[in-house]
Amino acid sequence: MQGQKIYKPKPVSGFHEWLPEIRSVELQWLKHIARVFESYGFTNIETPCAEELDVLQSKGEIDKEIYTLTRLQAADDDSGSRLGLRFDQTVPLARFVGQHFNDLDFPFKRYQMQKVWRGERPQLGRSREFYQCDIDVINVDHLPLHFDAEMPAVVYDALQGLGLGKIQIRISNRKILLGYLDALSIDDPVSVTRTVDKLDKLELAEIHKILVEESNLSTELSTKILDLVQTNDIASVRAENEQMEEGLSELQFVLDNLSHLPENVITPDLSIVRGLDYYTGTVYETRLLDVPEFTSSICSGGRYDDLAGRFITRNLPGVGISIGFTRLFNVLYHHNYIQSSRTTPTDVLIALMDEDDRALAGETAHKLRARGMNVEVYHLPQKLKKQMGYADKKGIPYVWFLPNQDKNVHEVKNMKTQDQSETTPDTFHLDNDAREPALKVASS
Amino acid sequence: MQGQKIYKPKPVSGFHEWLPEIRSVELQWLKHIARVFESYGFTNIETPCAEELDVLQSKGEIDKEIYTLTRLQAADDDSGSRLGLRFDQTVPLARFVGQHFNDLDFPFKRYQMQKVWRGERPQLGRSREFYQCDIDVINVDHLPLHFDAEMPAVVYDALQGLGLGKIQIRISNRKILLGYLDALSIDDPVSVTRTVDKLDKLELAEIHKILVEESNLSTELSTKILDLVQTNDIASVRAENEQMEEGLSELQFVLDNLSHLPENVITPDLSIVRGLDYYTGTVYETRLLDVPEFTSSICSGGRYDDLAGRFITRNLPGVGISIGFTRLFNVLYHHNYIQSSRTTPTDVLIALMDEDDRALAGETAHKLRARGMNVEVYHLPQKLKKQMGYADKKGIPYVWFLPNQDKNVHEVKNMKTQDQSETTPDTFHLDNDAREPALKVASS
Repeated sequence: MQGQKIYKPKPVSGFHEWLPEIRSVELQWLKHIARVFESYGFTNIETPCAEELDVLQSKGEIDKEIYTLTRLQAADDDSGSRLGLRFDQTVPLARFVGQHFNDLDFPFKRYQMQKVWRGERPQLGRSREFYQCDIDVINVDHLPLHFDAEMPAVVYDALQGLGLGKIQIRISNRKILLGYLDALSIDDPVSVTRTVDKLDKLELAEIHKILVEESNLSTELSTKILDLVQTNDIASVRAENEQMEEGLSELQFVLDNLSHLPENVITPDLSIVRGLDYYTGTVYETRLLDVPEFTSSICSGGRYDDLAGRFITRNLPGVGISIGFTRLFNVLYHHNYIQSSRTTPTDVLIALMDEDDRALAGETAHKLRARGMNVEVYHLPQKLKKQMGYADKKGIPYVWFLPNQDKNVHEVKNMKTQDQSETTPDTFHLDNDAREPALKVASS
Repeated sequence: MQGQKIYKPKPVSGFHEWLPEIRSVELQWLKHIARVFESYGFTNIETPCAEELDVLQSKGEIDKEIYTLTRLQAADDDSGSRLGLRFDQTVPLARFVGQHFNDLDFPFKRYQMQKVWRGERPQLGRSREFYQCDIDVINVDHLPLHFDAEMPAVVYDALQGLGLGKIQIRISNRKILLGYLDALSIDDPVSVTRTVDKLDKLELAEIHKILVEESNLSTELSTKILDLVQTNDIASVRAENEQMEEGLSELQFVLDNLSHLPENVITPDLSIVRGLDYYTGTVYETRLLDVPEFTSSICSGGRYDDLAGRFITRNLPGVGISIGFTRLFNVLYHHNYIQSSRTTPTDVLIALMDEDDRALAGETAHKLRARGMNVEVYHLPQKLKKQMGYADKKGIPYVWFLPNQDKNVHEVKNMKTQDQSETTPDTFHLDNDAREPALKVASS
């Protein structure tokens, strides 16, 4: 359209998009994670992007991060309800369970992998639009502790399959530290747990200083607390009261039920408390040991007593864990752990050397598709070099040659090995690794 | 949380969500459609939910349907750019191609299956948040006509696999009618095509009346035009000028290249013009012949000359087609074509009769998962009746019994047939139909 003014588009800050080659990796990862979630019987839900502001505003602190929706030209007939984009998947889950309580089967095991939005200042590892991959189990009145042990098992399968190297899942139980603080008659346990929560970001001496100066602890008390949370041998920890005892025995139960996982994957770590106050028992964090660029948790969660108290007068305890997918993916990409040169899902490009071959090309493609392969017929009978160049540029692993005057057989060329051999549409098989995008991720 | 005020959540008008049993069908449909798109070599992209308003407002008419985003407590440091939710996937595609032109390989075959948002008044078949499933092929300067024939082939595979009964894809080429109107020296061809576009909603006599009264056509001219668009035999249509000739020959080319599809799937229909002015050649609409509740197209599209002229000074012709997924799904659901009683992806529930069996249950589950099955271990050693009831309620197709004191073998019960038989974790196979959610869709 000549004469029209060109509007040069630019990225919107904090809203990310990928080129096809990287999106193909992201899509493969998301599919794998969903596969693992389903293999443990978690069922998928999707909630609308928007909730009523009254639903979203149960957690006052994050008000300023919420995006609200307005119709550009709102008419008089518009209903008065104000809507905002979800900023996590937990509030929508609580609303969903409250609203549909009578139509759900409990224990309700759900997974949810949608984008969430927060109007924060964007930086590496913090976007305004990002995927989270959540699993939660909710039950009525009582939720068996076995589910607390299921969460890390699922997460291990999910992350391990992505080839991210050594995974470490750290587990604690908030009752241990909270019980200890109670036994020590600490006035403001919340401020102490918030400080302890910073142990992976600050030096020990600094944490000690904050505990003494800001929480007004004696040096002795601060040392005692820091000794506890740094204990590696939880069997040696003595319970000072019932709450602590309960926490220790729950943690031991969870650890015992994870003994089938490879050594060193599961690590008890009493310094894990999670900032959020609604966790009441088991808590999790997850580290990638082979990716030094990651110093904080990529997957966290825990047990809570009451999911949906705001929405329903039923007691609904739950346990859940969440992979911060976009943050994980963006940081790995930024540090060159993720590379891919395949810009198409096409497995086989059928070369078209003559317009008369088009019907046979179509039939051949149809047969291969019926056998599960992704197939393109090159669109025009151009020079072979041009067609090979197309396959090469898009990272298509095989080029197929139809029978011709010289040779009455089908042939296929493996673009990686450059081997070319006879084949038929009924017998051809992809190499096992032909489907994978070319990844380079951390490995030990 | 006692004493707290209960907020009773209610659905937000126009924003839909499904219970797990229906979501499982929706998810299966979306996966199938994506599989088919990839089998033809379309690569996936996702764009952010929000675009700058300057990008969205290229089509002035739909301003009032756009949702804008505002941070609830926007701070002074906020950038001035105003954002709105996408209302289709074509504008974001144009922006994406314009922005990333140098990083894309052409012909660029992309599919996109995201939600879009329009602030319209909700009604059956019209939501404020809905999925569209789009494929488009974009090329630089010239796009071979073969791609116009590929669109209906892909759509046929996608829809046919959903078991929706008889599918009819109607095809025309806008050059035929526009050329004819030009040959007849019609002053206002746009108003005539808009009226002809209503042929599936209004009686022929009424269309005739509108053409005569509103477009000021003579009775003779109106009759001529309506004769043309009702022709079944396009071979009998005589080209009155070059444009018409081109349209007829392009349409014939597309039809010839679709001859491999089953009889009666493809129907030339010169009354198809599509309201949107940017289509310049081939146009498509799709009907479900076995679903009388659908009188309009469920999947439409066409050829356009210039995708991204607003964003880049390159000529980028394309052809695309879009399945109005949520509308299709909602209407079928509303008319009871979609039913499912399976609220979980779990294929096998391992019954737990004794706490001591937990390790063996876990091992068995692990083996079955490694073989691709979705497996839950029942969470507590409760009465068998309770465990069977759980499987029944959630629609789990198999219940597994571990070896016990009486019998040293694994057994599995098919919940549909009630057959119970010996098995092993290494040899058990699901019945072919065990994975499918229970669907009841139209069939001929």
